[in-house]
Amino acid sequence: MSTLMSCRVFLAAKRGALSQQARCLPLLAHNATITRPCIKQRKEQGHKQDGNSTHNWWWGPPLGASSLLMISWFSFGSSKDKDSYMAEPISGYRAFKDIENKPMRLRMEKLCMDVQHSLCQELQKLEPNAKFRVDRWERSQGGGGVSCVLQRGDTFEKGGVNVSVVHGKLPPPAVKQMRSRGKDLPQDKELPFYALGVSCVIHPVNPFVPTVHFNYRYFEVDVGNGETLSWFGGGSDLTPYYLDEDDARHFHSTLKTACDSSDPTLYPKFKKWCDDYFYVDHRGERRGVGGIFFDDLDSPDKEKTFQFVRACAEAVIPSYLPLVYKNKDKPYTEENARWQRLRRGRYVEFNLVYDRGTKFGLSTPSARIESILMSLPLVAQWEYMHSPQANSPEDLLLRVLKEPKEWI
Amino acid sequence: MSTLMSCRVFLAAKRGALSQQARCLPLLAHNATITRPCIKQRKEQGHKQDGNSTHNWWWGPPLGASSLLMISWFSFGSSKDKDSYMAEPISGYRAFKDIENKPMRLRMEKLCMDVQHSLCQELQKLEPNAKFRVDRWERSQGGGGVSCVLQRGDTFEKGGVNVSVVHGKLPPPAVKQMRSRGKDLPQDKELPFYALGVSCVIHPVNPFVPTVHFNYRYFEVDVGNGETLSWFGGGSDLTPYYLDEDDARHFHSTLKTACDSSDPTLYPKFKKWCDDYFYVDHRGERRGVGGIFFDDLDSPDKEKTFQFVRACAEAVIPSYLPLVYKNKDKPYTEENARWQRLRRGRYVEFNLVYDRGTKFGLSTPSARIESILMSLPLVAQWEYMHSPQANSPEDLLLRVLKEPKEWI
Repeated sequence: MSTLMSCRVFLAAKRGALSQQARCLPLLAHNATITRPCIKQRKEQGHKQDGNSTHNWWWGPPLGASSLLMISWFSFGSSKDKDSYMAEPISGYRAFKDIENKPMRLRMEKLCMDVQHSLCQELQKLEPNAKFRVDRWERSQGGGGVSCVLQRGDTFEKGGVNVSVVHGKLPPPAVKQMRSRGKDLPQDKELPFYALGVSCVIHPVNPFVPTVHFNYRYFEVDVGNGETLSWFGGGSDLTPYYLDEDDARHFHSTLKTACDSSDPTLYPKFKKWCDDYFYVDHRGERRGVGGIFFDDLDSPDKEKTFQFVRACAEAVIPSYLPLVYKNKDKPYTEENARWQRLRRGRYVEFNLVYDRGTKFGLSTPSARIESILMSLPLVAQWEYMHSPQANSPEDLLLRVLKEPKEWI
Repeated sequence: MSTLMSCRVFLAAKRGALSQQARCLPLLAHNATITRPCIKQRKEQGHKQDGNSTHNWWWGPPLGASSLLMISWFSFGSSKDKDSYMAEPISGYRAFKDIENKPMRLRMEKLCMDVQHSLCQELQKLEPNAKFRVDRWERSQGGGGVSCVLQRGDTFEKGGVNVSVVHGKLPPPAVKQMRSRGKDLPQDKELPFYALGVSCVIHPVNPFVPTVHFNYRYFEVDVGNGETLSWFGGGSDLTPYYLDEDDARHFHSTLKTACDSSDPTLYPKFKKWCDDYFYVDHRGERRGVGGIFFDDLDSPDKEKTFQFVRACAEAVIPSYLPLVYKNKDKPYTEENARWQRLRRGRYVEFNLVYDRGTKFGLSTPSARIESILMSLPLVAQWEYMHSPQANSPEDLLLRVLKEPKEWI
């Protein structure tokens, strides 16, 4: 039995990755005994209220918002409700009652809050000495979010899991961008929209533990005459510093199982999309070993697409946590850590130069920059003309980043 | 007499910043005894030749080029020639003979090579244990460059001084961009161009020594019918981690003297242009305390503009070196270094998100990425919701970055 196989979480996943047990992890958390994370109040960091901006809205991952009213988390729900989420959902606890009969946006919001909560709980178990900081913020134009960030842990150098739920008017340039992607939207009009999602980046301490990123989101646009367009987007991808083929295979096979539960044609398509999207063009290499990526998904129907997104989102824990348990205590050298910092520099390059969500967020006046740039690592490094020795472990990683592989 | 005033180099500058002595520093270096910097060969880093790309050209600072043939530095000139530059100029030693009668592009190339050499000499004096790596590269489509980079010194964490001299055909999108800036260029045609410049970023070790950046460049476009458009661009700017108003005043006053030697209306105009250009929009702050920035400069005439650019380029050493000598041995804490890393994160944000030269370089297929991203610091840091205490030295810096001052 391999080291990986000995991992408790991995075993749970392998008993049927996306088995009932794995898929219900976020739901099981509802009944779990939860140690509430430390909630630092705004006093500590000087959160500010800004109610003057008028041109803010949301687009893609990670989610930015503006005109923020940072508020501390206080409860209007029952004790059980409070234990079920990292903070009160933006739509309130009561909106989630009798959820099966509610509109898709509420069902998706509950899924995002569940995923955030269950993942933070799992990550927190690995951090006896550092706690998630939970910021619940509201957006004066509509909606808000819950950002959970942990820094300088024993296992995780920096990790954030954010939920955003925003609504308002989509400005004409955004409408134009969506039309260019094939959306049948009326031109030159501000359109009411509703957007929500969960996004996450985790940068571990140990260079043998990969960085993971995922984002799952839902978008609705009111195109007039009582008609609404809606679609889902998202994906999960893995960025190792040292290539462990077993880890890459495990990550991909967990995602493939999630995709296959809906349609076996999805994984190959979304795996390729991921390889194409996370491409650092000026380096001629991918950000990592990929995973899945998709956007504008609205078929075969809204319900089936939601079930697919749920399966992917619930695959996050079984796809990633086993890799953390397996590798987190491996000994490493300063050279390994230096390589990790250099690769994190490339991560910064991708996020600031190419990532659509980051670019759009940064160009949005008064966006919530700290939520957008939560994805950046704690420390990154650049060295002039650094190039690993041929056939070194560092070089082997680079080769896979230049020529992506089929992992399963 | 202030600490600053006691500085040897500063005194030299103050005896008449842009005095004959200061202005001639690069020329004086011709006769100096020079310890040749260590030249590491391509073996070390696996430089590669790529002769397939066809859509490469140069635009703005820092200078990127593609289809590179990395070559070691070997001499065709006299011993005196070899001692005068960091490597053989792209146009060759002989091109600089009888320079006063040569075309502007050769006179500007010599100025760039002089500035590179004299600055590297001055910086090298502060580094007994680290040497500049000198990479001379050629570009198959025309031209090449000399990159000089020093890393992990006692005084400088990372510093690069690059000269690029490239020529070829300007592709239609670039022509379009220039037309949008008011250049009277024929549409939808590839136009012969010639571009050269010197660019530099220096990130010191001690957080009380500011980072400096400068770039001075010259552009020629052949618009047909025997007519050529040409212009100069460039500037110098200072990025401190802790605000020392004497330092900021010294830097600005040295630049002002250089500007005033041509025209007293230039400094106020180019100081404002600099504050506007180095603006990190998503943070609502400038990158540093500014300096000067200008582009498309072609009046009153080519000769006078060249003299102005020469004065600015030759002001680099007297504007910056005194600040290094004054502050480099100041004691500092880990907290000071952490703040420096955080501010370097903002430097990365500006360079990757906004800097026109970097953005254009990165979008140019097969550009020389290592020359473009030489400007990034060795180490940068991001912390979620970091905000300095009110009225702390860190907070005082932020205030000036949010509200630029008139320093003189």
